[in-house]
Amino acid sequence: MVAGDGSGGQKWRELSRATLLKGPVLTVTERTSQAPDGRMGSFTVLESPDWATVVPLIQGPEGDSFLMVRQYRHGADAISLEFPGGVMEAGEDGAAAAARELEEETGYRAGRLVHAGSLSPNPAIQANTYHVYLALDLEAVGAQALDENEVVDALLVPAAEVRANMGKAPYIHALMACALLLADRALAGLQRT
Amino acid sequence: MVAGDGSGGQKWRELSRATLLKGPVLTVTERTSQAPDGRMGSFTVLESPDWATVVPLIQGPEGDSFLMVRQYRHGADAISLEFPGGVMEAGEDGAAAAARELEEETGYRAGRLVHAGSLSPNPAIQANTYHVYLALDLEAVGAQALDENEVVDALLVPAAEVRANMGKAPYIHALMACALLLADRALAGLQRT
Repeated sequence: MVAGDGSGGQKWRELSRATLLKGPVLTVTERTSQAPDGRMGSFTVLESPDWATVVPLIQGPEGDSFLMVRQYRHGADAISLEFPGGVMEAGEDGAAAAARELEEETGYRAGRLVHAGSLSPNPAIQANTYHVYLALDLEAVGAQALDENEVVDALLVPAAEVRANMGKAPYIHALMACALLLADRALAGLQRT
Repeated sequence: MVAGDGSGGQKWRELSRATLLKGPVLTVTERTSQAPDGRMGSFTVLESPDWATVVPLIQGPEGDSFLMVRQYRHGADAISLEFPGGVMEAGEDGAAAAARELEEETGYRAGRLVHAGSLSPNPAIQANTYHVYLALDLEAVGAQALDENEVVDALLVPAAEVRANMGKAPYIHALMACALLLADRALAGLQRT
């Protein structure tokens, strides 16, 4: 260990929890918890359903492309080019949500869906889980079927452009950089076998 | 374009904004906005200071290592192994915050700090910006200087282990996967020049 006494590997104990705000998208809670050394603190935690993102890869003679969605994002007040995805519905698992979001937002269906990883969007303040899937063997099956508040374009983007520019506008979504890392690692794993 | 009519590339117009909750870590607002086609909707947006993460790489004869921090995270209720970082202070830029967090959490100082990218933690619901830096030429300069509520261990972890396991416990933080992607790309850029 470079610094610290090992306590960073120990859990805190939750003493109480209060709901500060119950909204349509998230619930804001405050947790009062006790550290291994006895000290106490209050922490803001956001609760919401889990999220799923799907990285759809189309491999062709002219190179690889990702099927991506472009939309205005209200938090950043900016246009964002992303992999399809969204909030999981009640009773849905990550793969079902990934398949549903892919079809709703792009009109494509995946012949093969590979789980690339599941992590926390931000474990400091968020309680939900973020699931990432790699989608292969894509097939156009119909038109978009968007939610009431969605205005989304689906685009085919050369994979090399996405890999080179992730983190620069319009590739501004940090969770998509995370999804790209996991999907590319899953792809490399498939190609080795 | 695979699907859509191009409207996904157009901004919505904000009509009104209300504050739902003002907390120590974040402010929750509701924005009512109008789409290019005239329809209206309400959207939850979280406001908070910007965040910075620093990816400290130590290159040695036995291979590369990352200097990482281990801590309990209240949102996920789990131990998380992460790159150093945190909330930027008023008047601070990303590089200053990255340097400060590195020294506070690990006791190390970076001889060279390379900006690897700046994006949105989640542009759908968050208004702040997330800055990522690659730190090189590291030097131990003192002890940790943690905030009141921080219980953090600093560890040297082989880079190959981090790259292989990002996304599996204890590497559960999606923003760290994003930081790894950007930092490794910045490193590859430095090595080409």
